[in-house]
Amino acid sequence: MKRIAIDMDETIADALGKHIVLYNEAFGAAIHRDHLDGTGLHGAIPLEHHAATDAMIHSGSFFADLDVIPESQSVIHDLQEKFEVFITSSAMEVPSSFADKFAWLGRHFPFIPSTHLVFCGDKSILAADYLIDDSPRHFTHFRGEGILFSAPHNRRVRGFRRVESWQDVRALFLQV
Amino acid sequence: MKRIAIDMDETIADALGKHIVLYNEAFGAAIHRDHLDGTGLHGAIPLEHHAATDAMIHSGSFFADLDVIPESQSVIHDLQEKFEVFITSSAMEVPSSFADKFAWLGRHFPFIPSTHLVFCGDKSILAADYLIDDSPRHFTHFRGEGILFSAPHNRRVRGFRRVESWQDVRALFLQV
Repeated sequence: MKRIAIDMDETIADALGKHIVLYNEAFGAAIHRDHLDGTGLHGAIPLEHHAATDAMIHSGSFFADLDVIPESQSVIHDLQEKFEVFITSSAMEVPSSFADKFAWLGRHFPFIPSTHLVFCGDKSILAADYLIDDSPRHFTHFRGEGILFSAPHNRRVRGFRRVESWQDVRALFLQV
Repeated sequence: MKRIAIDMDETIADALGKHIVLYNEAFGAAIHRDHLDGTGLHGAIPLEHHAATDAMIHSGSFFADLDVIPESQSVIHDLQEKFEVFITSSAMEVPSSFADKFAWLGRHFPFIPSTHLVFCGDKSILAADYLIDDSPRHFTHFRGEGILFSAPHNRRVRGFRRVESWQDVRALFLQV
């Protein structure tokens, strides 16, 4: 059975959506996801806001109540019939997120056993056939094929198969 | 550069040692590591103590102040000159341990970058050439070679290269 590793933030969890809301509230701004063409939130805000904006992710329970990316639950549920699925988050970048991420996964993806969750840093450690991820940097030394999940920051990245949505993932892996 | 994945509990962190101390304190017992020949703590204590003994690991900050297994720091430090080293703990079995394990690693193994830490469950997800671990169950589907780090519970396990100490690891991988 082939194995698919799946990222969390911007792939199944809408971290960017919450980050934009918090940023707009804090700075009286009106950033919208569509303003981020080929860039992350940093690219659309003044340099002097970067530190405070980064701190939003590292403090409190940022990751506790993220929205689920549409259709990710039903597609991953169906993928499990034909593939071995692991959720693989580079959570080591934000150690304060461990408990929230684990609880979030249990709440929204209860059909994925905890044996199949991975909190890591360098994703080249993953032994999988595919890695669905919005960060192409993780594909560089990954031994399988990287599938780029579209996000504003990766809009101009070339060189990988790209999926725009979980409907695309379903079409790619389940041919329906 | 070949890659070595290294377990935490009973390999670099003396979880059993603390567990025995807590058990003896709670039950007025005098269990010693040498009493555990081919068994874990469960095998040496009455069945009616199992639930309370298991709970010791899941509550509070059990993993915060474990002793370091002798010589693991200096040997792993030296291994990094010739191998890529990842620390890989099946921490998903005890989600309350995430923060303590991360802090413990930062305190005792500051020379291992957080990119090279992995909290997982099923270790077949690890892409590494070697896995040094006290639990042979992790070797079943691991794609590299499992190296069994001796612990009381695995004393009678056969079929893998075994190391008794970090001196043995040094001799095996660094030939000194």
